[in-house]
Amino acid sequence: MSTSISPLAPKSFPEMPPVAGVRLSTAAAGIRYPNRTDVLLALFDQGTAVSGVFTRSKCPSAAVDWCRERIKRGGGASALVVNSGNANAFTGSSGRSATKLTADIAAKAAQCKPGDVLLASTGVIGEPLDATKFGGVMDRLVAGAAPGRWHEAAKAIMTTDTFAKGAAAVVRMGPSAVTICGIAKGAGMIAPDMATMLSFVFTDAPIAPAVLKTLLREGVENTFNAVTIDGDTSTSDTLLAFATGAAATRGVGKVSRLSDPRLPAFRKGFNAVLADLAEQVARDGEGARKLVEIVVEGAASKKSARRIALSIANSPLVKTAIAGEDANWGRVVMAVGKAGEPAHRDRLSIWFNGIRVAHKGERDPAYDEAAVSATMRKPEITLKVALGLGKGRDRVLTCDLTKEYITINGDYRS
Amino acid sequence: MSTSISPLAPKSFPEMPPVAGVRLSTAAAGIRYPNRTDVLLALFDQGTAVSGVFTRSKCPSAAVDWCRERIKRGGGASALVVNSGNANAFTGSSGRSATKLTADIAAKAAQCKPGDVLLASTGVIGEPLDATKFGGVMDRLVAGAAPGRWHEAAKAIMTTDTFAKGAAAVVRMGPSAVTICGIAKGAGMIAPDMATMLSFVFTDAPIAPAVLKTLLREGVENTFNAVTIDGDTSTSDTLLAFATGAAATRGVGKVSRLSDPRLPAFRKGFNAVLADLAEQVARDGEGARKLVEIVVEGAASKKSARRIALSIANSPLVKTAIAGEDANWGRVVMAVGKAGEPAHRDRLSIWFNGIRVAHKGERDPAYDEAAVSATMRKPEITLKVALGLGKGRDRVLTCDLTKEYITINGDYRS
Repeated sequence: MSTSISPLAPKSFPEMPPVAGVRLSTAAAGIRYPNRTDVLLALFDQGTAVSGVFTRSKCPSAAVDWCRERIKRGGGASALVVNSGNANAFTGSSGRSATKLTADIAAKAAQCKPGDVLLASTGVIGEPLDATKFGGVMDRLVAGAAPGRWHEAAKAIMTTDTFAKGAAAVVRMGPSAVTICGIAKGAGMIAPDMATMLSFVFTDAPIAPAVLKTLLREGVENTFNAVTIDGDTSTSDTLLAFATGAAATRGVGKVSRLSDPRLPAFRKGFNAVLADLAEQVARDGEGARKLVEIVVEGAASKKSARRIALSIANSPLVKTAIAGEDANWGRVVMAVGKAGEPAHRDRLSIWFNGIRVAHKGERDPAYDEAAVSATMRKPEITLKVALGLGKGRDRVLTCDLTKEYITINGDYRS
Repeated sequence: MSTSISPLAPKSFPEMPPVAGVRLSTAAAGIRYPNRTDVLLALFDQGTAVSGVFTRSKCPSAAVDWCRERIKRGGGASALVVNSGNANAFTGSSGRSATKLTADIAAKAAQCKPGDVLLASTGVIGEPLDATKFGGVMDRLVAGAAPGRWHEAAKAIMTTDTFAKGAAAVVRMGPSAVTICGIAKGAGMIAPDMATMLSFVFTDAPIAPAVLKTLLREGVENTFNAVTIDGDTSTSDTLLAFATGAAATRGVGKVSRLSDPRLPAFRKGFNAVLADLAEQVARDGEGARKLVEIVVEGAASKKSARRIALSIANSPLVKTAIAGEDANWGRVVMAVGKAGEPAHRDRLSIWFNGIRVAHKGERDPAYDEAAVSATMRKPEITLKVALGLGKGRDRVLTCDLTKEYITINGDYRS
């Protein structure tokens, strides 16, 4: 398995301020391997609101089931326990028992209700998760929890990720600034033997649960939902947002309505954190050598543009062409054609990094092979398709498909 | 580009008898490269019926547009011209002119109506097809046409195929036997810079056009439509069936109704030819080292079973696992889950080559790693999923995803 850092990785982990009301702690519980940090505990001040979005898989992991139920009940959040090494997916009734036991152990140590503990697991699928192992580290985790340990937290949830992923924003909200910090893990939609895209976002802004829910649902649409590595949907995809409300002590009043005039600024910062994390997931796609932005415009609708963009982004022939630094617009036409959305061959135009290669259904008369070849060697490629039908526009992020992807995913389980 | 023959290839090209009323001829017209056989001409006796099914792409090739129009008009077939080297796809108005010119040239040489000439093209996309080149070889093609030249014909339409694909069946029909012969080309759904799955099936049985149309539409459903290499749909997929009716001279009366008692036997032979050709396409998938049959049963419906089977067959993570000889049922669960069809995690069972690896949502208690590892080393893998919900059952064929696929499709165009 590759251990080299993605060539598309950011230069360093970002500066991330603490979020008032959130304390973090990590430990090595020996979930799969000894002496490897594999548990993250986040503790929240009383009154913390939580919302979440999850995989659309019909076969979700036990932790996804657990979180969905907790959030549906409208409970608050006192703790979050995330483990790597085992996804607790496809583990039947023992999986359900493991979630309950984990929550019980955390609740006892953190002196909260088990129903206020959120869970996420990532790692091997189909192996029972031995939740008793959390018992050996939980008291220490609680005792050692401290604000601002984002880098450690981001590292604790990695599996085949080649770099830790974090993002932060500070936004003015009435009399004070509020902070939004997020971490994520990705790699493949589902990594070798492992499941999961996980992301956790934390803020001290006092956002009511219903408002947080809307922010999250809207924010995810153009960020995490607009990233695809291989079109394979994990059984464990989880994105949780926590709002501690601690900024209230600095005079920031509660945001209870979507019409709150302070919300646009907050939303902008919140979405920027989601977008940054989502892009980092694409930059760490398994075997990725190129970050690829697909822009579709002139579609019948935004929804249609999204479908066409995903058809292009998930096409193995488009992705291998980009890996080969080949501006193969014939394959782009193929991917547009197979999407099943309104498209007219003789109105299509296609650009790579701003250079038009095809126009109105034929090769661009001004096609310059040398200029196109030069731009395809860049690590970041923007592929734009104009359909010439309507005003629908959308974008998605993906990466190229390389032999390294096959190596990572074609190796024996070990 | 790889030139070695697929390890999954049949031992040899099959014995294929002539079909009365069909004469074949091939030539090197220099469409893309000099001195390479790149044109196939088939000539049909008067009264030949034709039907076709085509790509569902919204951006089809000019030849697909041409054939669709001819067949919709209900015309007969006097000639078929197929070229490799250029797909005449995404070539705008020049592509339409090229189809017309090709038909005119063939009609003149074969002394028939241009509207009775069918066309198919495979090869590079987006390059204008210089149809005048057919002029230089058409008279010789017509003069040299002879029955039974199936192997030559199958070779003439290859692009990145590593072996020529043919299949035949002989069926009793009243007083005489009738013959069904077919050829195909595949490789990727769309090969490097090239488009196309093409197949042509010929019979001397006197089948009325409306009956032929039904046979073809029904026959393709469980054969060519049940094969996927990479989920990428070609702009040029074409399957044409020709019925010359020449067996009438041997006393075989016309089949004009679907209720004809002779039809079931014919249908069986016809479908067997389609199934054989479709399997050969899967056996020659780009970079394929394993032939993979996906069987889904216990689904809510056959349609649901097909969707789940295709979700598994198109999953890069399932395909790379099989390339790595890893019975990774966790990824199979993932692919079932993402299909969006009814599925219940805790009722799922999964088999590789008859060995049950997962049962009712958990690892099979009798799981034997050694036996599973041994069976995964075989060149043919049957992956069965039982959903335990209903009676819907279906199967599709695919191949594994190897580094060779990336090599073939990630190389520069040259």
